[in-house]
Amino acid sequence: MSPSATALPRTGIGVDVHAWGEPGTPLWLGGLLWAGETGLAGHSDGDVAAHACCDALFSAAGLGDLGTHFGTDRPEYRGAAGVVLLADAARIVRAAGFEIGNVAVQVIGNRPRFAGRRAESASVLAAAAGAPVNISATTSDGLGLTGRGEGLAAIATALVVRTPVGTP
Amino acid sequence: MSPSATALPRTGIGVDVHAWGEPGTPLWLGGLLWAGETGLAGHSDGDVAAHACCDALFSAAGLGDLGTHFGTDRPEYRGAAGVVLLADAARIVRAAGFEIGNVAVQVIGNRPRFAGRRAESASVLAAAAGAPVNISATTSDGLGLTGRGEGLAAIATALVVRTPVGTP
Amino acid sequence: MSPSATALPRTGIGVDVHAWGEPGTPLWLGGLLWAGETGLAGHSDGDVAAHACCDALFSAAGLGDLGTHFGTDRPEYRGAAGVVLLADAARIVRAAGFEIGNVAVQVIGNRPRFAGRRAESASVLAAAAGAPVNISATTSDGLGLTGRGEGLAAIATALVVRTPVGTP
Repeated sequence: MSPSATALPRTGIGVDVHAWGEPGTPLWLGGLLWAGETGLAGHSDGDVAAHACCDALFSAAGLGDLGTHFGTDRPEYRGAAGVVLLADAARIVRAAGFEIGNVAVQVIGNRPRFAGRRAESASVLAAAAGAPVNISATTSDGLGLTGRGEGLAAIATALVVRTPVGTP
Repeated sequence: MSPSATALPRTGIGVDVHAWGEPGTPLWLGGLLWAGETGLAGHSDGDVAAHACCDALFSAAGLGDLGTHFGTDRPEYRGAAGVVLLADAARIVRAAGFEIGNVAVQVIGNRPRFAGRRAESASVLAAAAGAPVNISATTSDGLGLTGRGEGLAAIATALVVRTPVGTP
Repeated sequence: MSPSATALPRTGIGVDVHAWGEPGTPLWLGGLLWAGETGLAGHSDGDVAAHACCDALFSAAGLGDLGTHFGTDRPEYRGAAGVVLLADAARIVRAAGFEIGNVAVQVIGNRPRFAGRRAESASVLAAAAGAPVNISATTSDGLGLTGRGEGLAAIATALVVRTPVGTP
């Protein structure tokens, strides 16, 4: 590819889906604890929004995915909070020579009602990533896995750019 | 974040899903009326492509989502056409200090057959956004909510960049 | 739009879904043949990852979609391998005056286990596109069309920028 290609920003994509857990499971979503809401099943905190952000960052930087960096061969990440993973993903991306432009993630599901805590969630995720993060929410109009109330999905994109050589 | 981060473009994402409506509902999609096709249910015109474009623009600019700007507390938008929302979303994003690079949206569903009016739809959406818009279409091979004919989905991305201070 | 808009990079999106085929169908995915795995149904090799990359490139460049370029009116593409389509998509995008920054694609499904051949797949796709390609993988936690084992999905994004006039 041409030399200038390395100076172009790069875009990435990440989707994450988790099934709803047993009653009593705490809901962690977008870096926040949602009191009174049943949470997501799984070995992690199930924060689909934070996980999708991580995957979008790795995707943009050409560094694989969540499994590459936080897989079962890395037991120190077992059960780690989504925002901890996001902070580490951002650190790994920067250490590989990229600046993070922004991350944007959309939560797709029936609940929780996101609007009242949208700005708070964006702030927590942005602090973890050290870059602007937007979080938005939608339903799937009662259709599909999220509409049937089986689980929650999130989709994220991110933009990174290779840091000029010699930049501290 | 570093000062230069504010000069990087930002990327955003938006997904929208609507269920098919009763026979006789007009189909508005990608800013066009599709004569003879049953449309989508809901309080709006159900234009999933236009709505996904709006959400992608808000997502890229860090301005929340459709609900933030066109929610039930804004009755003037009730029933508004998708292209009206897209024009207003573009205006809001520009007023917040961003230039719009482009918007790209893909419609996922069994119908209508999009190819014959793809360019026309792209032109209408681009006129509303005041920026290049690509619209594409695919099926989900008979699978999932769109393949079963329950609804129509659209997914969009957008790129914006903060306008330099002092730009008129 | 302003003159400077043409110098901004453009982002694109592409989703592809194929149903699993009959036992004995070879699995082509991410440009690789997966020995011992049942593949995807359809008239092409069913490489959802390569197809999503093509659609993301066309989407970013404002050039329509797979059907616009490789549709049934172009019989020479019938049954073409996904990487052949990706190489041609990249050629078409460049011929239209764009440089390709990167492509990023995520495979969503129960199988194959992608991690062991992730780097190999990324190399094959990058060689076809002539640009950096990241490929990542996730499951949908047993939910939806991919979780039920009905099919395989891929979602891609791409970044392109218009080549300056006069560039050879």
